[in-house]
Amino acid sequence: MTSKELTQQIFKKKSFLCVGLDTDLDRIPTYLLSEEDPVFSFNKAIIDATHKYCVAYKPNIAFYEAIGVDGWKALKKTVDYLHSEYPEIYTIADAKRGDIGNTSRMYAKAFFEDLGFDSVTVAPYMGKDSVEPFLEFTNKHTILLALTSNEGAYDFQTLQTDNEELYKQVIKTSKGWNNSENLMYVVGATKAEYLADIRKIIPENFLLVPGVGAQGGSLEEVCKYGITKNVGLLVNSSRKIIYASDSSNFAEIAGAKAEALQIQMAQELEKL
Amino acid sequence: MTSKELTQQIFKKKSFLCVGLDTDLDRIPTYLLSEEDPVFSFNKAIIDATHKYCVAYKPNIAFYEAIGVDGWKALKKTVDYLHSEYPEIYTIADAKRGDIGNTSRMYAKAFFEDLGFDSVTVAPYMGKDSVEPFLEFTNKHTILLALTSNEGAYDFQTLQTDNEELYKQVIKTSKGWNNSENLMYVVGATKAEYLADIRKIIPENFLLVPGVGAQGGSLEEVCKYGITKNVGLLVNSSRKIIYASDSSNFAEIAGAKAEALQIQMAQELEKL
Repeated sequence: MTSKELTQQIFKKKSFLCVGLDTDLDRIPTYLLSEEDPVFSFNKAIIDATHKYCVAYKPNIAFYEAIGVDGWKALKKTVDYLHSEYPEIYTIADAKRGDIGNTSRMYAKAFFEDLGFDSVTVAPYMGKDSVEPFLEFTNKHTILLALTSNEGAYDFQTLQTDNEELYKQVIKTSKGWNNSENLMYVVGATKAEYLADIRKIIPENFLLVPGVGAQGGSLEEVCKYGITKNVGLLVNSSRKIIYASDSSNFAEIAGAKAEALQIQMAQELEKL
Repeated sequence: MTSKELTQQIFKKKSFLCVGLDTDLDRIPTYLLSEEDPVFSFNKAIIDATHKYCVAYKPNIAFYEAIGVDGWKALKKTVDYLHSEYPEIYTIADAKRGDIGNTSRMYAKAFFEDLGFDSVTVAPYMGKDSVEPFLEFTNKHTILLALTSNEGAYDFQTLQTDNEELYKQVIKTSKGWNNSENLMYVVGATKAEYLADIRKIIPENFLLVPGVGAQGGSLEEVCKYGITKNVGLLVNSSRKIIYASDSSNFAEIAGAKAEALQIQMAQELEKL
């Protein structure tokens, strides 16, 4: 999916919500555990209940890898289900990969070809040749970690380098890489005040913004500093939606949580 | 496995070689492709032929993920085979993971519990709370990217921060994290001249050194600047060993390549 098509979906649905599928066997309703594939059953119910209110889903790959082969199967089934039932939905593999060139190429193949995701999150520490293999894919996005939502972001990302903080250097440098028009960036909602500076460097690119919800970031602040005329935002919420309830109507309640966020987003979009 | 036990194995085998299992269906001998699990068949043959000359194996997780569920199965079979047939061997998941705390905990579970690796490589960009969940595991090592072997390492890792280059800041900061005695560090053989400075910061920790072989690093240089009285080095070679030949005696030739490196390593150990 192109950025333009994503923007169209956002205006159509009046939502720039991404629902994070951090599906954990220890947290899903226990009655699902007797199903053949509890992870997929949970995801399917969540997707069916929330898809009207969001434009993207973001499976967090760690949660699938943690249960081995079964997890990988459930991940594949989830992406296939999204593609077949809701082809208008944008898909993000939250994988935070990055390695030397020939290895990054393999990761790109895994997420773009084998699993068919529209985008994948990538860590910048290993530099240009670790990211460019992802950027080679047409109509796919590479979502580079810039300033993350966690406390540890202050360990290295905000260090002052030659001219400015490391995360700014990462964003500026990445603009010079091949096919950099396929880049999006991760900027945590917990660091909304940094968004104004970031928008000076990348006025147009989409930002994937985690940290609204369980991590405490504010949607209003994110929009104040980060929204563009083409929106340019995907705001993610995971735990606050998918684990809003562990009773038999968990999906319905997740849907209501997603709708509540969508309504706030529609208000923000009206300001444009 | 503890660092002490690893050192004992190194002196016993007169080798600090790690063989990288970057197993790629496009590069293994074509006659293996008709086997039920060609990736595992290749790995098993390589392991049986090289285990006498090395102390560790390092599957590169990207290569397994690139073929989906089948890859994950082959990876699990490979680790299980190592544990059952060669329990003295140290295992490294070259995964370069790292995410917010609750997600890193899931990756740690995937590699340490589900797959049973002795260690996993982790990227430092997201800081303390992205690495500490790996460090909590007893008798497991977390191998932090410091200065990698690729060209892109010069994009950010060697940037001058407040006081010194970023990779040095990463190493120094990580020493203050909980259970930091479980840390090893990745330092590329292509950057051997940096090792002297690194040893001033971490005189004892093991270093995982990729880049000897296909990437052009020199074993002699690595030892000159990086070896300690307890060795403190695991030098990895992947493609130059496992793809030395694509004929039916590929494993035998891989064994000879591994032995040649082991002989050089024995000479370096004699200098201690």
